[in-house]
Amino acid sequence: MSNDNSPTPFDPMAAPRYSELATFFRAPLAQSAKGIDIAVIGVPYDGSVTNRPGARHGPREIRNMSSMMRSIHHSTRRNPYEICTVADLGDVRFSEVFNVGTVITEIESFYSEIVRCGAVPLTAGGDHSITYPIFKALAVDGPIGMIQIDAHTDTWDSFQGSKFSHGAPFRRSVEDGLLDPEKTIQIGIRGAQNTTEGWDYSIDSGMRVVFMDELCEAGVDKIIGEARRIVGDGPTYISFDIDGLDPAFAPGTGTPEIGGISTLDALKLIRGLNGLNLVGADVVEVSPPFDPTGVTALTGATFMYEILCLLAEAVARGR
Amino acid sequence: MSNDNSPTPFDPMAAPRYSELATFFRAPLAQSAKGIDIAVIGVPYDGSVTNRPGARHGPREIRNMSSMMRSIHHSTRRNPYEICTVADLGDVRFSEVFNVGTVITEIESFYSEIVRCGAVPLTAGGDHSITYPIFKALAVDGPIGMIQIDAHTDTWDSFQGSKFSHGAPFRRSVEDGLLDPEKTIQIGIRGAQNTTEGWDYSIDSGMRVVFMDELCEAGVDKIIGEARRIVGDGPTYISFDIDGLDPAFAPGTGTPEIGGISTLDALKLIRGLNGLNLVGADVVEVSPPFDPTGVTALTGATFMYEILCLLAEAVARGR
Amino acid sequence: MSNDNSPTPFDPMAAPRYSELATFFRAPLAQSAKGIDIAVIGVPYDGSVTNRPGARHGPREIRNMSSMMRSIHHSTRRNPYEICTVADLGDVRFSEVFNVGTVITEIESFYSEIVRCGAVPLTAGGDHSITYPIFKALAVDGPIGMIQIDAHTDTWDSFQGSKFSHGAPFRRSVEDGLLDPEKTIQIGIRGAQNTTEGWDYSIDSGMRVVFMDELCEAGVDKIIGEARRIVGDGPTYISFDIDGLDPAFAPGTGTPEIGGISTLDALKLIRGLNGLNLVGADVVEVSPPFDPTGVTALTGATFMYEILCLLAEAVARGR
Amino acid sequence: MSNDNSPTPFDPMAAPRYSELATFFRAPLAQSAKGIDIAVIGVPYDGSVTNRPGARHGPREIRNMSSMMRSIHHSTRRNPYEICTVADLGDVRFSEVFNVGTVITEIESFYSEIVRCGAVPLTAGGDHSITYPIFKALAVDGPIGMIQIDAHTDTWDSFQGSKFSHGAPFRRSVEDGLLDPEKTIQIGIRGAQNTTEGWDYSIDSGMRVVFMDELCEAGVDKIIGEARRIVGDGPTYISFDIDGLDPAFAPGTGTPEIGGISTLDALKLIRGLNGLNLVGADVVEVSPPFDPTGVTALTGATFMYEILCLLAEAVARGR
Amino acid sequence: MSNDNSPTPFDPMAAPRYSELATFFRAPLAQSAKGIDIAVIGVPYDGSVTNRPGARHGPREIRNMSSMMRSIHHSTRRNPYEICTVADLGDVRFSEVFNVGTVITEIESFYSEIVRCGAVPLTAGGDHSITYPIFKALAVDGPIGMIQIDAHTDTWDSFQGSKFSHGAPFRRSVEDGLLDPEKTIQIGIRGAQNTTEGWDYSIDSGMRVVFMDELCEAGVDKIIGEARRIVGDGPTYISFDIDGLDPAFAPGTGTPEIGGISTLDALKLIRGLNGLNLVGADVVEVSPPFDPTGVTALTGATFMYEILCLLAEAVARGR
Amino acid sequence: MSNDNSPTPFDPMAAPRYSELATFFRAPLAQSAKGIDIAVIGVPYDGSVTNRPGARHGPREIRNMSSMMRSIHHSTRRNPYEICTVADLGDVRFSEVFNVGTVITEIESFYSEIVRCGAVPLTAGGDHSITYPIFKALAVDGPIGMIQIDAHTDTWDSFQGSKFSHGAPFRRSVEDGLLDPEKTIQIGIRGAQNTTEGWDYSIDSGMRVVFMDELCEAGVDKIIGEARRIVGDGPTYISFDIDGLDPAFAPGTGTPEIGGISTLDALKLIRGLNGLNLVGADVVEVSPPFDPTGVTALTGATFMYEILCLLAEAVARGR
Repeated sequence: MSNDNSPTPFDPMAAPRYSELATFFRAPLAQSAKGIDIAVIGVPYDGSVTNRPGARHGPREIRNMSSMMRSIHHSTRRNPYEICTVADLGDVRFSEVFNVGTVITEIESFYSEIVRCGAVPLTAGGDHSITYPIFKALAVDGPIGMIQIDAHTDTWDSFQGSKFSHGAPFRRSVEDGLLDPEKTIQIGIRGAQNTTEGWDYSIDSGMRVVFMDELCEAGVDKIIGEARRIVGDGPTYISFDIDGLDPAFAPGTGTPEIGGISTLDALKLIRGLNGLNLVGADVVEVSPPFDPTGVTALTGATFMYEILCLLAEAVARGR
Repeated sequence: MSNDNSPTPFDPMAAPRYSELATFFRAPLAQSAKGIDIAVIGVPYDGSVTNRPGARHGPREIRNMSSMMRSIHHSTRRNPYEICTVADLGDVRFSEVFNVGTVITEIESFYSEIVRCGAVPLTAGGDHSITYPIFKALAVDGPIGMIQIDAHTDTWDSFQGSKFSHGAPFRRSVEDGLLDPEKTIQIGIRGAQNTTEGWDYSIDSGMRVVFMDELCEAGVDKIIGEARRIVGDGPTYISFDIDGLDPAFAPGTGTPEIGGISTLDALKLIRGLNGLNLVGADVVEVSPPFDPTGVTALTGATFMYEILCLLAEAVARGR
Repeated sequence: MSNDNSPTPFDPMAAPRYSELATFFRAPLAQSAKGIDIAVIGVPYDGSVTNRPGARHGPREIRNMSSMMRSIHHSTRRNPYEICTVADLGDVRFSEVFNVGTVITEIESFYSEIVRCGAVPLTAGGDHSITYPIFKALAVDGPIGMIQIDAHTDTWDSFQGSKFSHGAPFRRSVEDGLLDPEKTIQIGIRGAQNTTEGWDYSIDSGMRVVFMDELCEAGVDKIIGEARRIVGDGPTYISFDIDGLDPAFAPGTGTPEIGGISTLDALKLIRGLNGLNLVGADVVEVSPPFDPTGVTALTGATFMYEILCLLAEAVARGR
Repeated sequence: MSNDNSPTPFDPMAAPRYSELATFFRAPLAQSAKGIDIAVIGVPYDGSVTNRPGARHGPREIRNMSSMMRSIHHSTRRNPYEICTVADLGDVRFSEVFNVGTVITEIESFYSEIVRCGAVPLTAGGDHSITYPIFKALAVDGPIGMIQIDAHTDTWDSFQGSKFSHGAPFRRSVEDGLLDPEKTIQIGIRGAQNTTEGWDYSIDSGMRVVFMDELCEAGVDKIIGEARRIVGDGPTYISFDIDGLDPAFAPGTGTPEIGGISTLDALKLIRGLNGLNLVGADVVEVSPPFDPTGVTALTGATFMYEILCLLAEAVARGR
Repeated sequence: MSNDNSPTPFDPMAAPRYSELATFFRAPLAQSAKGIDIAVIGVPYDGSVTNRPGARHGPREIRNMSSMMRSIHHSTRRNPYEICTVADLGDVRFSEVFNVGTVITEIESFYSEIVRCGAVPLTAGGDHSITYPIFKALAVDGPIGMIQIDAHTDTWDSFQGSKFSHGAPFRRSVEDGLLDPEKTIQIGIRGAQNTTEGWDYSIDSGMRVVFMDELCEAGVDKIIGEARRIVGDGPTYISFDIDGLDPAFAPGTGTPEIGGISTLDALKLIRGLNGLNLVGADVVEVSPPFDPTGVTALTGATFMYEILCLLAEAVARGR
Repeated sequence: MSNDNSPTPFDPMAAPRYSELATFFRAPLAQSAKGIDIAVIGVPYDGSVTNRPGARHGPREIRNMSSMMRSIHHSTRRNPYEICTVADLGDVRFSEVFNVGTVITEIESFYSEIVRCGAVPLTAGGDHSITYPIFKALAVDGPIGMIQIDAHTDTWDSFQGSKFSHGAPFRRSVEDGLLDPEKTIQIGIRGAQNTTEGWDYSIDSGMRVVFMDELCEAGVDKIIGEARRIVGDGPTYISFDIDGLDPAFAPGTGTPEIGGISTLDALKLIRGLNGLNLVGADVVEVSPPFDPTGVTALTGATFMYEILCLLAEAVARGR
């Protein structure tokens, strides 16, 4: 990223972690997904939140904190950057950020190009509404499966007259045939609601809903097994809403619910998904204005790294 | 709360959660407890803290965060607002806030009126000294039992010459015949002390003291059983000092002690108390000036909601 | 706001300022503007910001800090509450918060009712886009004049395809015949722009644009004179964007520009507007998530109080 | 402060400023004021505040920030530590911190001992109520004069039934013949009040009250002259309430009022008091819990240093 | 910065300001200064601070906040990006960040390459020690002049045995013949010191030292004249230490001194330097860990923009 | 610490915890370790961090928070201050804080004097590099054993050309024969790395490395057993890097890694080490600038107290 005429090429990983511009994981920037295995993308959009805003600032701050991520995973001793090509593709560009229709179209279009190039997208949101247009780009060959970490099912219908709030993406996705509810598991669900509509939709449509109560009772290992059973070897997406975690671990989010998953359990859960047929993933709802310690963005960046490791293995297997 | 001539009455629960004035749980305000089943009250007093102040700001900020609470509990699928009438009764009004004697009298008087109306009080403190005058109003027919979540037994004697510090309410309550020590359980006790006086008083008077060591060893389920056994079907009060929780979950409090209860365990514990003969409850010691993320006030508000659900069931059973 | 059967009625001004629910200025709540001289209203909407969000949380936090405001102005020794009736009317209620068209309609409708009752509205925003629908309700008898404190002229045209961003309200207002540009003065303008379009529109339409450079050079007294000359005795609105102030005095806002007005100068400026024919006012763009010290909300509340004093005098004169 | 057997004695001023325990100005600790010219003392008491607490934490945090103070004043090129002996006397010790009567007695007693030793006290508060007992110790030979920097006159009568709130010290002092109102000037007064009682008392008793309006109009130089004229060569105390400053410069205080003095003007004002017959001084109302940037404590520490320079000159002249 | 196949090239200035990676001013990244008029560079180094650290995080956060900067200056109506080519050259890369000798060499080497390409460097520090090696690269044809905004002269000699602390760069620069003291003006100097050594060196070597006292007395206009007179038409560097500003405007710095320059005065001062023969500039000592509101980084970014405008004019004149 | 002529000596433990200067645990200050059993020391040095700085401010803030610690341990009912003599020895004094060689020498020299006096050192860092010179002073009779709580093995080799970064102390200690790798256990290791070098060195040299995965799987009790088995009855040091804890419990540190030890587990672990032959201990890497809630410093202070209890028992046994 700088004038460097020395024979040894600059290794951003060897530089102090606070230096240089913050790309995701200190990966190179790319103008196109051509030749890239895993495209890391920011979607700085929070126009569909029902409560506290700020997730529009998520991609910047996750990039910033992702400089703390290094390469070799301590458990697997695998280095995703040796397994595949990773690049920061920048952010989705909006021409009409107040128009949810255009926003959806432009996200879909951006991801369609990624998919066309054969790259697997790993996304930093943004609010959870962005997953719906990502699915529009990904599910071109039929509905996909999903493992969702979240406090909320996000299968509600309308909020304040909008069918595209961040509480609705998976209802919309099922309705549009993008998401296969029978191959969907939602983990970490909790918190009071004013109607049971969303919980009901998830369950009635065939999704496997794991409330926190069950997760605590059954333990993470059992839920990993359940998740693997449900998605099987079909194309699967991981959607990680940071509010699935307990606010002690991730206070900087718009609709925190206490009594959530610990990072230790969530790390175990994510690592337990290795070997699946993963076609994309996102980490959403990190809201930096509500994160004075920065720990939420750090946590978001770390889960992006952990999922990157899974995606890299999936890419490698797919060759 | 606003001019609204439309035929459909305004539903504050359907409004964006950051809108309107913050009453507890977006419940209606009431000038009197007449016709109210559960009266939610703020006691903005921290004149008896021995360490860091700020709990006087607790009721305001808990009200603010309580807007995030919705109605139907995800585990029970019960809606407390359908079961009984809930209102925000405002704050106890002080005419001599520097005079602990008058403070005690005015709190007692406020709650006596609530009790006279037949309402069950649910309180947001304030420091823990406020529970003593609440007991004065509640325990008119003899001593009551208590389930206390706390890092400290609050059965110390004098501090700096005062018998009414926030470290003393339950010693005073036993002495006055308001609290039955044999029907009292204190859960989450920990942290060094300069004398064993408080621990000794609790144990010697017959209270069941569950130190964190025992809670960890025995598990929450056993302690729920123990709590239910001890209070039996007698009139029981829940006093939830936010410092019973670990400071990772509740940093905004005056005398934090690390190594406390997690919110997951505390939620399980509270939910395990359903069916008891509950006559009132409080959540105390939330200190907003030490809570830059707001997570402590959110946690306080959530436990108030969880306890509200228990109180509503008790009210319904009592009809 | 609470059960109080004592013969002396409760005086919220005599209570500790951290106690009770936070209404604007500890004024009574009202369901309608009937019989109210000055209606204080919150508009918790920030769906039109082009940059950092959070002003949706403005009304709540301004209410909170407004408890610090007392009654008798130290310069004039006048008490606005003795001069006229003031009430907190709550917040504008939105049924489609993501739909800017409906938002505009609902704000207009809310204010039309206020105007119909003969009350003068004093508003806490929200982002600056809200002033346009307020003008729709106010300017029923022809365009009104305006004294605007702001870093930006907010007379830009479209942003990201929207004609209703918070950078556009006064262009829209002129186009709709709601605002008389010849009776408009914009004070405190500064900061680089990507096009001169907004500055040009203001100047070309006949507004008096006072850049910070001129304000510093000429001094506040001269600008007061200029403002009074321009609005004359016509119906005049004061729109106070908190970003008109320097970020040292008001860091918690979405688009801060350094080198702004000091609070001392702004207070002098506002106080210099006494005697004008004021028909309404707002304080907008306070964004609590970017205000860790709370000083921006305090500043917003204080300017609302200062303007309230002006409005009260105008109401009194109008009798 | 540490084991140091080297021949060159340790110079705390040469050590990194973040090192060692924080005494005031890195001065030595002393057990007694014997042989000390200027005794620097903390009074960690905020039991008399009417609004936001936290000034009890003031002495610690002012000590912490005072490590940034060095010795030679840039304007005078004088080094107070070469002119006289300065020591940190620790904090006033309270045995009954909830009993305002005992608090007053113990503060008075502590300062009487200082005075008996012939030392001049420089104090870090604590809330402003502490100046009254300090006056009890200092004004043994008749009432003294005062130059007060403050947003409030602190000559109110009772608040919530207490005659000793932080809004009352100077009314009590005049009543007790400790403070000569004719030799008192109050600078920076502003902000609405619910009654004119305090302003009236100050003016009626003969104090010179300089509202912010006058300070801005007249300029600092004129007010310096006025202050010097009023106190003359009589024994004079400087009481610096940090809320005299604008909250942009000192947000961390309990009752901030916008539109206050800038630090530049306040520095000029203080420096303009050189040559007076100073017998003591304090800096009060720094509330660290409301000071996330630490700038208020830094400002408090700097004004303590500036006043220390004045006191040192007064001590030197008095020899 | 992203895959964009549309015929209209992406204009980062038209995108929402929170989107995309944060380069300085949303300018393009460049690997080399070839063809670049103004090279914007980060130097993330704070290994030479004597007090509070954190300036190593300055370049990242200044880049982040610089997204808020737009193109056309409101006073001059000039757009620096139309006048010349601006690029973000990334950060200086360190191979031995703990070795001050290597650090100096690597900074010098980086800037020598910039100079060789004919670009003018505009730098975001980092602590003030970095200006010394920048001068090594710039002053190849003889000593240059300097206009320095700062609370400290930074002409001290050794601190803790090091001749290269952030208090020493200009003494070292004079000694090495890089800086012409007779063509140097230091503005904003203030704050106590433990020795007069630095002040003495500045004055004795012929620098013009403008203490805050003089700046306040004389006014900014006179000091502008003085600065222009001193540097004349010789090659001149602007070094802007953010601690030259008052901490109300820039709290996030390692050695704040109250009573500093306001941003309004500093803006006037910088704008008054137009037309000089500027060869480079820096903004240093922004320390994000001490800047919870972000206002210091915003201020740093804005002064970088203001100086960029001056540099652009100088480049244009030089053609 | 203050003038106190009363017959009853002042008991700092009975004073309000926010009062007086903050020494470690409110223990007395001492100029020498003579006659002291346990010497508590601050090492305010962070010149060797590879990432975020600030640990230089650790000793001050840990001292501040340590005032909250009281004397009698709630589990053991033992009071370390009755068992042995504890004093605050102040901070290690640096004469060349930028010169890592001198820093190492001066730390070693300070601790050698402590050891010569027969005191056991308990240290608050500072970054982890400081343990190496402490070992130089302690391991005079041959290599010692260590129980290390940490996210990182700190057995890396060079970073940025330095062999003395905070990632290297234990490699250096083994190389110098100060640390016996066969008597070393590292607990809590996790987080990606760019090379396996450090992990490999630890394992290859014979250290027992307990990754978080194993700790979770095996449980704390088994790891306590493992730790006791490994160190046996040899002289053992406890080195507690606060980043061994999860950032939910300790966000204020330079290189946080999510998925760490909870305070409950860490407390159990530390308490499980009673009876060992402990010769010293430290708590390092608390970085106050990244700790807005103060919870990290509180946690550091509490673990220092817990370890103090162990050291006191070891001292008592050794008599």
